[in-house]
Amino acid sequence: MRMTHAFIPTRKEAPSDEEVMSHIYMQRGGYIRWIASGVYSFLPLGYRVIRKIEQIIREEMDNAGCQEVLLPTVLPGSLWKESGRWDHYGKELLRFTDRKGTEYCLGPTHEEAIVSIVRDEIKSYRDLPLNLYQIQGKFRDELRPRAGLMRGREFLMKDAYSFDVSSESAKETYEAMRNAYQKIFKRCGLSFSIVLADSGAIGGSLSHEFHVLAQSGEDTLVSCSECHYAANVETAEIDNTESTENVTCSPEDLRKETVVSKPSENSLSKHIKTLLYHADDELIAVLIRGDHDVNDVALKDILNVASLSVAQPSVLKKTMELSLDDVGPIGLEIPMVADRALRDAHGMIAGANESNQQYCGISIDRDITTIRTWGNIRCAAHGDRCGHCKQGTFSTTRGIEVGHTFFLGTKYSQPMKCQFLNEEGKSAPVVMGCYGIGITRIAAAAIEQNHDEHGICWPLPIAPYQVALLSLQPNDDEVKATADRIYQDLEARGIEILYDDRKERPGVKFKDADLIGIPIRITVGRRTLDNGQVEFKHRTDKESCLIAQSDIITFVERSLETLRNNS
Amino acid sequence: MRMTHAFIPTRKEAPSDEEVMSHIYMQRGGYIRWIASGVYSFLPLGYRVIRKIEQIIREEMDNAGCQEVLLPTVLPGSLWKESGRWDHYGKELLRFTDRKGTEYCLGPTHEEAIVSIVRDEIKSYRDLPLNLYQIQGKFRDELRPRAGLMRGREFLMKDAYSFDVSSESAKETYEAMRNAYQKIFKRCGLSFSIVLADSGAIGGSLSHEFHVLAQSGEDTLVSCSECHYAANVETAEIDNTESTENVTCSPEDLRKETVVSKPSENSLSKHIKTLLYHADDELIAVLIRGDHDVNDVALKDILNVASLSVAQPSVLKKTMELSLDDVGPIGLEIPMVADRALRDAHGMIAGANESNQQYCGISIDRDITTIRTWGNIRCAAHGDRCGHCKQGTFSTTRGIEVGHTFFLGTKYSQPMKCQFLNEEGKSAPVVMGCYGIGITRIAAAAIEQNHDEHGICWPLPIAPYQVALLSLQPNDDEVKATADRIYQDLEARGIEILYDDRKERPGVKFKDADLIGIPIRITVGRRTLDNGQVEFKHRTDKESCLIAQSDIITFVERSLETLRNNS
Repeated sequence: MRMTHAFIPTRKEAPSDEEVMSHIYMQRGGYIRWIASGVYSFLPLGYRVIRKIEQIIREEMDNAGCQEVLLPTVLPGSLWKESGRWDHYGKELLRFTDRKGTEYCLGPTHEEAIVSIVRDEIKSYRDLPLNLYQIQGKFRDELRPRAGLMRGREFLMKDAYSFDVSSESAKETYEAMRNAYQKIFKRCGLSFSIVLADSGAIGGSLSHEFHVLAQSGEDTLVSCSECHYAANVETAEIDNTESTENVTCSPEDLRKETVVSKPSENSLSKHIKTLLYHADDELIAVLIRGDHDVNDVALKDILNVASLSVAQPSVLKKTMELSLDDVGPIGLEIPMVADRALRDAHGMIAGANESNQQYCGISIDRDITTIRTWGNIRCAAHGDRCGHCKQGTFSTTRGIEVGHTFFLGTKYSQPMKCQFLNEEGKSAPVVMGCYGIGITRIAAAAIEQNHDEHGICWPLPIAPYQVALLSLQPNDDEVKATADRIYQDLEARGIEILYDDRKERPGVKFKDADLIGIPIRITVGRRTLDNGQVEFKHRTDKESCLIAQSDIITFVERSLETLRNNS
Repeated sequence: MRMTHAFIPTRKEAPSDEEVMSHIYMQRGGYIRWIASGVYSFLPLGYRVIRKIEQIIREEMDNAGCQEVLLPTVLPGSLWKESGRWDHYGKELLRFTDRKGTEYCLGPTHEEAIVSIVRDEIKSYRDLPLNLYQIQGKFRDELRPRAGLMRGREFLMKDAYSFDVSSESAKETYEAMRNAYQKIFKRCGLSFSIVLADSGAIGGSLSHEFHVLAQSGEDTLVSCSECHYAANVETAEIDNTESTENVTCSPEDLRKETVVSKPSENSLSKHIKTLLYHADDELIAVLIRGDHDVNDVALKDILNVASLSVAQPSVLKKTMELSLDDVGPIGLEIPMVADRALRDAHGMIAGANESNQQYCGISIDRDITTIRTWGNIRCAAHGDRCGHCKQGTFSTTRGIEVGHTFFLGTKYSQPMKCQFLNEEGKSAPVVMGCYGIGITRIAAAAIEQNHDEHGICWPLPIAPYQVALLSLQPNDDEVKATADRIYQDLEARGIEILYDDRKERPGVKFKDADLIGIPIRITVGRRTLDNGQVEFKHRTDKESCLIAQSDIITFVERSLETLRNNS
């Protein structure tokens, strides 16, 4: 593609309110454009990346025996009422009525839709197993869309749904899909990790997340130093049996003191953090050690509530300004949930519900008698003992969730009556799995993992073009002729080239090439051409090298081959 | 694909309320499933057809220099207010608010969205021309979704938008797109017609429709016997200068009579049909000759109203039941619009606004003095004189609109300020065109044009598979081995085969093969195999022929070649 014919509107500056690199580079590089909160358009360059990811996914889904379908974006509310999710999905489900007043929603996921089809067609065990997938735009009305394609409202997703006769066979399907997912992310040229996960709004009993590893990821993942256990901190099993220093130390007298300074990092484990939540319509307090973080998923689970949101200290005393540190459990007359790590602890410190006052010497059992529930409600942290092998300790990395597999069991087939006759002629609900990949998010995550201060460094398999060809002096006949010939020769070999034949300064071309991030760059310029040479550079290399003009085609082919083998 | 592994749920019976053959066969053949009014899911077989159509479109769009993008489905209302269509598009535009109360709609077409992107990136004439396309799900909240994919609410569309510096260059682009469209429909293997059309809600000054010709089409097209003029009846220019027999005959006395019988087909031209419409909020009467049909487009144009809908005779006299034939212009005290073909007519007959009474001997000028507007408000009809060459007469065919091109001019670029600096350094609005193809409707139209009483007869280029292979006795080792070998040999040659290896009776397999409609059928059965032969049949042939088992692969390849060359 000649850049003089292409619609690749690059920009020198990123809008000032953007912080995520993938978002900045996709906007600046002419890949995407913002159209509404969490809603983007893909320009030609961006859509090429998407189509490459789609193609890899299609091939691996087909190889795994899945069949492609296309379900509607607009789904009838009646189906969602059947599954019970109409009432439980929350505001992310965008609902509306049509001109006749019938209720619909924009599909954020398609379990109901696929089950409504399959249940009418499956008669006996002979019709199973069945595995259907689609690639489709989804919509989730996120409260806070952010970070461009990382958390948009409209996004492209591959979702697959499997139907099996038994849990055993469904587990085999689940494993096959896990394998297919590994192949997909490997083929995309991404470094990734598979972790145990929470099933969330989709439901089911077993679930894995696939994370592209990147410092900017919004998820924290733990992996054990001894066993192969890896999990999202929201799910990670922690070994809480070990007693802590707070338990072994002796009881002290309870006393109230004025706070003189913020607690140090090291002393945080002596503090009780008291967090307030609205759990459905009730205000509750959550007690957790100062050095720990609340695991919202576990908390919601233990409380068995539909909605959970953080409340501000001002709900306690509107007349006096309380900070979070001022809030404490003693004298607080609302229901409390406490993390197990606090059990039997002595000598603890907590806010006194007065400005700048704190209680010291707290013995949990003696001083706080109103705790309604104890549970494991904290997130795993770096250094925690692994709850799986009880031997190793956890280390943490950060990741971007790009895939999620769920073993659903009969969560949907039971209420929606998706049944079959088994070999004994008895009716039974099918056993389901579902499997999602965020296609647009892969594009963003790939950039988060592969970029430098100048722009994107695409992995070859999902790069919009394989080679960037720069003609530095397009008005120089020989430069132009040489670049044109290289362009034609590479195209004839089926190589995808973005040919910068614009009448721009060399500096602009180099900057745009780095920003756009094509894996290989060839530069044709007057200076090197006098020696019969052109410049060759990998996007990730610091230095370029000079190649004889006559060798460049072979050299590029060999370099692409090497890149393919290394990915 | 082996049918034992495929999800192709065929049905013996069509639901009783379906009348359109494409809809019946796509449901029965396991291509699509209904999920809500005008909303369908594509099963694997149906989606294969869609993907083939998409691929042909992509190739021809790319060849024509278009670049593929992907715009959002959910569009902000603010953009539609800028263009003015938020208020004028009507209820087909499905509107809703998100969780924050911001207004959005589901994109029924994307002029606003594309202009909002392009206007920010186009600076000078050097950035033009530009032509962008996308393939995307659209939603139009039709009042009466019907006929399956023919008029659904959610459907797949290819829409392209071109941007040029001048009307001349925009016309060249328009012609290039018209050529690309011809190639697309030809490559799909369809017989089609291009006609002049009305621009409707999209707007603009010049517009062509592309129709797949089929008796069941809901559009009537006229073509001239002498010149190359062809148009939708809604647009066709009629030569109204010629006087009619009603004008040349002498005036009679006006008299009221009791209706004794329905008028005969031949005497319809002596009658005045009086139709009632709600035009915006006003009730009006439309007078037209009994043998003519009202052209709603022309009527709306002449009245210059936003909404127009047929009213029932009961709005006149709720106490007495009037039929349509009872309504007449004499004594009717509401505004009237009359068709030019009635001008100066004598001896006409019309209802008397009483049950079973009519006026005879009407002279329009003498007896009906309250006509507010005269205009060409009838549709062209078979036998009309061509208004273009004024020589030939019109003959009519029926078609299904699958493509539409619009020369938009500055209808969107002007209000939305999509401007560029021309060679003189002056700012000017870009000149636009837009070009749509109904992808899902092509699938249905192809069936309307290509089917028989047993099922679909796909044109090869968009058939889900090229060859159907039937194994009549899958339990017979030799039959199975032969069929398996043919399957493998054809697959190895890149031919797409649907292999019916199910344990079903031969009758079921033949019926399903006819229903599904794959162009070539090979049957392997015990009886012919004893002679070393297999059966070969084109879907459209009455009789099959026997081919030596050893020759079948070559024979199939040659047959496919012939089919490709003939299409």
